[in-house]
Amino acid sequence: MADAVLFEFLHTEMVAELWAQDPDPGPGGQKMSLSVLEGMGFRVGQALGERLPRETLAFREELDVLKFLCKDVWAAVFQKQMDSLRTNHQGTYVLQDHSFPLLIRMASGLQYLEEAPKFLAFTCGLLRGTLSTLGIKSLVTASVAALPACKFQVVIQRS
Amino acid sequence: MADAVLFEFLHTEMVAELWAQDPDPGPGGQKMSLSVLEGMGFRVGQALGERLPRETLAFREELDVLKFLCKDVWAAVFQKQMDSLRTNHQGTYVLQDHSFPLLIRMASGLQYLEEAPKFLAFTCGLLRGTLSTLGIKSLVTASVAALPACKFQVVIQRS
Repeated sequence: MADAVLFEFLHTEMVAELWAQDPDPGPGGQKMSLSVLEGMGFRVGQALGERLPRETLAFREELDVLKFLCKDVWAAVFQKQMDSLRTNHQGTYVLQDHSFPLLIRMASGLQYLEEAPKFLAFTCGLLRGTLSTLGIKSLVTASVAALPACKFQVVIQRS
Repeated sequence: MADAVLFEFLHTEMVAELWAQDPDPGPGGQKMSLSVLEGMGFRVGQALGERLPRETLAFREELDVLKFLCKDVWAAVFQKQMDSLRTNHQGTYVLQDHSFPLLIRMASGLQYLEEAPKFLAFTCGLLRGTLSTLGIKSLVTASVAALPACKFQVVIQRS
């Protein structure tokens, strides 16, 4: 269906547009567009979190919320489930997607690895925003070892 | 379903972000972000056009293509159909949506009318891009008289 790819197409254009507008930072600097993308993802995630089924409010444990992200949220956004979820039981969770949809269309090969972060920033924000709506403060980062697989690390911020 | 609103949420964030980055032009000038949004819509429309069912290639008449936009493309993007389609049979088509999804969440009231163009630019591009993939060059503009209804005017460019 066209509507499933619409989000992907729009995401691709958004990344390209923000990237093109953003001048290269000095050595060690980070492109501003990465934090812009993360912020957009955060707000979309927040809004999405408010649309989730009511039963999600009954989550008792943090792990239930993370499982919900991996199953329901991922299905709503990417029409698939996250492939694995691990935790150290101390507030750190590693979510692994062996074939992340926003990376699939990229050519694979080591030389494209450095292009990957710009396709992950929005989704990091999306996870952080959804968690925020569910009452959990977190830091979310992503890493890629071999395209199109990627890992999202969620570190819960206790207040 | 969350995936239907995902496009809307992302579109809203994209408009807000591009608008915030773009300084106000002088009197009579037009914000650059409008043409950026239109360009993004064009490329998304082109890509979407390539994903459409094969039968679309068999369109014999221009009007068939426009009907296809009003029914299938609109359904794929907005989960509804366009409300009316009129033509002067000389290459100008007026597509009317009585309740355009990207305007529905805006408060209605005359004072918000001037905010409407930024929520229409992407979709103008989307229509132009899809038509382009189907082999038709066009100019697409939009106008709003009473929120959340709007009209898209498609003028075919004969070469």
